[in-house]
Amino acid sequence: MAVNTLKTEEYFVQEEPFYHPVSDEVTVFEAAYRNHLPVLLKGPTGCGKTRFMEYMAWRLQRPLITVSCHDDLTATDLVGRYLIKGGETTWVDGPLARAVRAGAICYLDEIVEARKDTMVVIHPLADDRRVLPMEKRGELIAAEDAFCLTISYNPGYQSVLKDLKQSTRQRFVALEFDYPGSDTETGIVARESGVAPEVAARLVKFAGMTRNLKGSGLEEGASTRLLVHAGKLIVSGIDPVVACRTGIAQALTDDPEMIIAVNELSSSVF
Amino acid sequence: MAVNTLKTEEYFVQEEPFYHPVSDEVTVFEAAYRNHLPVLLKGPTGCGKTRFMEYMAWRLQRPLITVSCHDDLTATDLVGRYLIKGGETTWVDGPLARAVRAGAICYLDEIVEARKDTMVVIHPLADDRRVLPMEKRGELIAAEDAFCLTISYNPGYQSVLKDLKQSTRQRFVALEFDYPGSDTETGIVARESGVAPEVAARLVKFAGMTRNLKGSGLEEGASTRLLVHAGKLIVSGIDPVVACRTGIAQALTDDPEMIIAVNELSSSVF
Amino acid sequence: MAVNTLKTEEYFVQEEPFYHPVSDEVTVFEAAYRNHLPVLLKGPTGCGKTRFMEYMAWRLQRPLITVSCHDDLTATDLVGRYLIKGGETTWVDGPLARAVRAGAICYLDEIVEARKDTMVVIHPLADDRRVLPMEKRGELIAAEDAFCLTISYNPGYQSVLKDLKQSTRQRFVALEFDYPGSDTETGIVARESGVAPEVAARLVKFAGMTRNLKGSGLEEGASTRLLVHAGKLIVSGIDPVVACRTGIAQALTDDPEMIIAVNELSSSVF
Amino acid sequence: MAVNTLKTEEYFVQEEPFYHPVSDEVTVFEAAYRNHLPVLLKGPTGCGKTRFMEYMAWRLQRPLITVSCHDDLTATDLVGRYLIKGGETTWVDGPLARAVRAGAICYLDEIVEARKDTMVVIHPLADDRRVLPMEKRGELIAAEDAFCLTISYNPGYQSVLKDLKQSTRQRFVALEFDYPGSDTETGIVARESGVAPEVAARLVKFAGMTRNLKGSGLEEGASTRLLVHAGKLIVSGIDPVVACRTGIAQALTDDPEMIIAVNELSSSVF
Amino acid sequence: MAVNTLKTEEYFVQEEPFYHPVSDEVTVFEAAYRNHLPVLLKGPTGCGKTRFMEYMAWRLQRPLITVSCHDDLTATDLVGRYLIKGGETTWVDGPLARAVRAGAICYLDEIVEARKDTMVVIHPLADDRRVLPMEKRGELIAAEDAFCLTISYNPGYQSVLKDLKQSTRQRFVALEFDYPGSDTETGIVARESGVAPEVAARLVKFAGMTRNLKGSGLEEGASTRLLVHAGKLIVSGIDPVVACRTGIAQALTDDPEMIIAVNELSSSVF
Amino acid sequence: MAVNTLKTEEYFVQEEPFYHPVSDEVTVFEAAYRNHLPVLLKGPTGCGKTRFMEYMAWRLQRPLITVSCHDDLTATDLVGRYLIKGGETTWVDGPLARAVRAGAICYLDEIVEARKDTMVVIHPLADDRRVLPMEKRGELIAAEDAFCLTISYNPGYQSVLKDLKQSTRQRFVALEFDYPGSDTETGIVARESGVAPEVAARLVKFAGMTRNLKGSGLEEGASTRLLVHAGKLIVSGIDPVVACRTGIAQALTDDPEMIIAVNELSSSVF
Repeated sequence: MAVNTLKTEEYFVQEEPFYHPVSDEVTVFEAAYRNHLPVLLKGPTGCGKTRFMEYMAWRLQRPLITVSCHDDLTATDLVGRYLIKGGETTWVDGPLARAVRAGAICYLDEIVEARKDTMVVIHPLADDRRVLPMEKRGELIAAEDAFCLTISYNPGYQSVLKDLKQSTRQRFVALEFDYPGSDTETGIVARESGVAPEVAARLVKFAGMTRNLKGSGLEEGASTRLLVHAGKLIVSGIDPVVACRTGIAQALTDDPEMIIAVNELSSSVF
Repeated sequence: MAVNTLKTEEYFVQEEPFYHPVSDEVTVFEAAYRNHLPVLLKGPTGCGKTRFMEYMAWRLQRPLITVSCHDDLTATDLVGRYLIKGGETTWVDGPLARAVRAGAICYLDEIVEARKDTMVVIHPLADDRRVLPMEKRGELIAAEDAFCLTISYNPGYQSVLKDLKQSTRQRFVALEFDYPGSDTETGIVARESGVAPEVAARLVKFAGMTRNLKGSGLEEGASTRLLVHAGKLIVSGIDPVVACRTGIAQALTDDPEMIIAVNELSSSVF
Repeated sequence: MAVNTLKTEEYFVQEEPFYHPVSDEVTVFEAAYRNHLPVLLKGPTGCGKTRFMEYMAWRLQRPLITVSCHDDLTATDLVGRYLIKGGETTWVDGPLARAVRAGAICYLDEIVEARKDTMVVIHPLADDRRVLPMEKRGELIAAEDAFCLTISYNPGYQSVLKDLKQSTRQRFVALEFDYPGSDTETGIVARESGVAPEVAARLVKFAGMTRNLKGSGLEEGASTRLLVHAGKLIVSGIDPVVACRTGIAQALTDDPEMIIAVNELSSSVF
Repeated sequence: MAVNTLKTEEYFVQEEPFYHPVSDEVTVFEAAYRNHLPVLLKGPTGCGKTRFMEYMAWRLQRPLITVSCHDDLTATDLVGRYLIKGGETTWVDGPLARAVRAGAICYLDEIVEARKDTMVVIHPLADDRRVLPMEKRGELIAAEDAFCLTISYNPGYQSVLKDLKQSTRQRFVALEFDYPGSDTETGIVARESGVAPEVAARLVKFAGMTRNLKGSGLEEGASTRLLVHAGKLIVSGIDPVVACRTGIAQALTDDPEMIIAVNELSSSVF
Repeated sequence: MAVNTLKTEEYFVQEEPFYHPVSDEVTVFEAAYRNHLPVLLKGPTGCGKTRFMEYMAWRLQRPLITVSCHDDLTATDLVGRYLIKGGETTWVDGPLARAVRAGAICYLDEIVEARKDTMVVIHPLADDRRVLPMEKRGELIAAEDAFCLTISYNPGYQSVLKDLKQSTRQRFVALEFDYPGSDTETGIVARESGVAPEVAARLVKFAGMTRNLKGSGLEEGASTRLLVHAGKLIVSGIDPVVACRTGIAQALTDDPEMIIAVNELSSSVF
Repeated sequence: MAVNTLKTEEYFVQEEPFYHPVSDEVTVFEAAYRNHLPVLLKGPTGCGKTRFMEYMAWRLQRPLITVSCHDDLTATDLVGRYLIKGGETTWVDGPLARAVRAGAICYLDEIVEARKDTMVVIHPLADDRRVLPMEKRGELIAAEDAFCLTISYNPGYQSVLKDLKQSTRQRFVALEFDYPGSDTETGIVARESGVAPEVAARLVKFAGMTRNLKGSGLEEGASTRLLVHAGKLIVSGIDPVVACRTGIAQALTDDPEMIIAVNELSSSVF
């Protein structure tokens, strides 16, 4: 593949992503979208939130602008800034302003990681005003009809310092995500990694064992994504036990005793 | 709707917003306004403070400039800054200076979230001097006669670190807001979401149950805004129990047991 | 009133402000001024410090440059900075440098809120050197003969972190302010708000009750300013009990029980 | 050697580095590389992680771009920034963007030391999207097929504040490194430092003694790198006991009693 | 006096300042100066350190460059920086560099308040190298022969966080200052304020009483400077008790009981 | 001496500095230098580390670039930055880059005081890669053959926050310094200050007494440097007891009781 540079708002999902609905999330998202209500996705890492957003972007035929939030992300990063180019000062829209203008889906991943001013810049977009104040320009922009704001976070990680304020939460329709059921997950792993279904089933069984250790030594169990990793290593000829050790156990934890325990679980499966 | 860009001070509320007075807030606000006294609004999220400001802006026929305050908001953000454009340095008024010049209503939402210098920049505007010092320009501007300063905050959230100082508070006339009475609220929900009045009444009943849980597991009860969200989802064909779960329960809390409890409450109503 | 923009050092108080001396503060201030000694004003919010400064500026016929200090106020903000305008770099004097050059009265309100470098920049101005170092220009400027430095703070608020250092305090003549006696205060409230004297007297009586609650549930009692607010609301036709609730009680505190208690006090007076 | 300046992405490892595989790390790395899976290396300092990366870069014939992470490393440092040169603003790609465009191996050493925004900028590169958002340019770049992301950290050092989040970890295949077995290590030390094999064997024996003191007074035992240092000093004519004191004991700890203890260990060996 | 602007290094003390040596400080300072040894002055606020420096500058006929240190003072502030003026970038020497080049006495007042990088920038000036590294210019400047570095601090204020490191202290000859003996101090107060000697003597007696309260309610006793203030107020016609209250007691403390106690002391004297 | 400005990398030590080896430090330093191994100097302030570096620079005939590290020293300060001069942007190498290009000895004094990114920027210079990444230029520079990296710190001062990480320490050959033996030290003091040998011997005896008080009231004992100071004051005619008080005791501590105790020690010697 050649190097490919896209404008942020040109990221359309061209082909239908593989997504298997777990509950009524597709219907509720569409209803919220039609009513101009913003959406909040909650759930553990690697359970399919990103894939769901790619799927909804494809289904609604809108560009998808994803921003991974972090400790240093400010409102300016989202809205835009003046840059000096060749002696001229040019305004460069940030990803949120691009989404507002282009009628895109703006997906702010792990919103609680961002600085507090980002929460506040989305407030007027997340109620019936649907406007984005651009204070550096002294302007307000009204969102395109097709614009959709979606945010996500993982409730399992929240601390008191990094919590969603009620004045933010109470602006969103909230969808909860979790790992898929085992048959569904087996299908996903087989399809994504190329392993045989019965190997995928063993990986899913092993994942379930690690998820039961959550809170008893593991911070999280193995995500669907890790199962796909292990599957790919197996397809490339790595021994399944080594694939589970390097693709799953070592990725989950650094605790030597937990790694031994998790490796024993994988040996019992393979 | 096409993308629409307005100058900040051109935001007039064109049509009378739906607003149902709860107490004497409209009369007191008008008296304060006529006497050039600044106003402080107190109350929980989603109970109608923003709508009240839109209503007063319409009633007084003044532009409304809203600033959502946050941890990183500085006096410079409110007053203005020099920007370099095309080799020339241009001064760009901030939203507070725009309001002072245009005789607008400046509404600083959740003022206690802002940095401390913002408190202080409003002091000379909030007493009988009614001037705004613009230190970067070495100037003072006297406020237009029609200028009005309004701030809000939610006393329920305040910590010791984020409190309004007495030297700030004692410059304002203060109005307390709360959720409307149930008949009023039923009318609001029906009107705003389009659900039938008896469905609206059930939603209001359910909201009351969640408000009773405040301090016993919930940080806040469901706001009027969330009831409108659930109503819109119901009108779009989502099952009321699902609408309450995604539009209200999941938006209120992440605690799995509280979500079950709140869902049981909604099931008992629908 | 049309919008009016003044240079900072052109702010002369044109008409004699209403000010009723409480003790020997006018005489001592004048003696300090004649001896080139800087002055420190101490006292609670809203008791008349700002009005006193306006009065002295009028009496001494000097411009008054007020700076409300805050957490982010730096020496640069006071002294001045280089700004780029049209390709040229221009030095812009800060308010303290303007006062030093113009022989104005510089009033630094709530000085302890400012950053520590501001304390230090005033040290050579606050002893017999009377010079202002402008380090960014590599210059010293000697203060005009008529220049006067005044600072204020509220000792009731001070924490260990925000205290005036001995090396700062021991450069000032210090004047303590407090609420005026009740007859004086009744006269002030009647005159400033337009209420009848006996209504003003009731407001003053009510204020005294709230001041007795200081330290027993209230952080501060009602200031003279708040009484003027309530008086203005009454003159505008608001019921006195409502005027006391919104103009005083809600402005003083957020504690529901204290608000009820304070409202009962106002009901007992009106 | 003359001073030699290279563009970051021109750093090819020209000659095969000496690397002795300890386990299946070469095979697993290659399988991960072929499957576009990013890799995480874990292990103590000086055990060969950097050498392993040089070896894999040589083996895969890709340029190697190493970034040593630290407390102040931001996403901007990795992605790039605008710089003003001769009146023109030029974009300068950071090392991560250079690697993405050049199809290089990007090795982020001690990733947990970096600021949190760096974690997040690698997320879309570390799942099947393989894109790098360049928010300052409003662009996304798709990674060259040959691009490979590798990160490392030392689990022994991690504190709660500096930990890899599950949403980061669960994107990587993880390889654990440790000191090589004694025969292997003896060979490495002899080859790298030029000491005779039996001197190398004594150094390795001494290193093992210090590694047993880990957690009993030493934070870490002597790394292979320190053994090579001591060997080189010995070859230069320094007495082995002095070489062990200055090349190993003093480099390991400042505790006077531990230094004496470690020196006694080296005297027992030499 | 007209406004007078001087270059920093042009500040010569023209007339002999009134200074009464307390011990051997003048001789030791001169010996240190002749040997190129830097000097550290220790002592409480207002006891004459600044006056001593003015006296030595006059005696040695060198310009005196004083920098009052504070929390935000950085090495850049002392050494210099590039400024853009009229499209050209100009280097502006900071006060320390000006002193180094001009052979001035550089007096860093309350050095421990400054940021840590300032300590370090003076290290190579404070040993026998006597050079100032200017890292932004990639240069070293050797100090003029007449250059002299003096720093001061008040040991009574030091906290663990703001202490002089041994690597700094052990570069200086250290002189300790304290209040002058009572006869000396009476002479100083009479001379500086113009009060009659017996009034000056009473002020000195009163000061001694406050100094005995140090540590028993007062942070510091009254400095000689405050006595001069009170003397000047008395000469201007203010009653001595009022002069002591506003010029001394209120300047020393905010504690209401201590102010009463100190006022009683002054009443017992006058 | 006229003011003399040198480029940083032109600082050659022209005349042999007086240095008396204490142990095998010269031999080990030379062996490390020949093997391209970086060196770490440990020891208390004023014991001769700086003089040792001047001596080695003279001996090896290399320029010596010293950087005194501090809390605000960043990698950018060491590596270099773009500066705008006359409309053109020029790259200015920092002292570390100058040393790398010029084959100088770079001495980073008190390295643990610097910000963490400085540690990391020296890592690739401190192993067998010997390259300096200049991320702002997108370049790597290979060190000149003669380049030598030396760092120092004082283990006695280290806190948990300011410690050398194992991944840094384990790249260096480490030399420990301490005060010289008494005969050696007597010779140094006599030679450097010009006092007669028997006065120097008394100063050294006195220093030993203060060093015994380390940890029993004194943070450090008197360094050799302080003895030279006192000697110089004595040669200038200051009484030895006064010279010890101002040149040593007051420089060591602020504790009044310790100063008395130390003064008694000096009186017992002179």
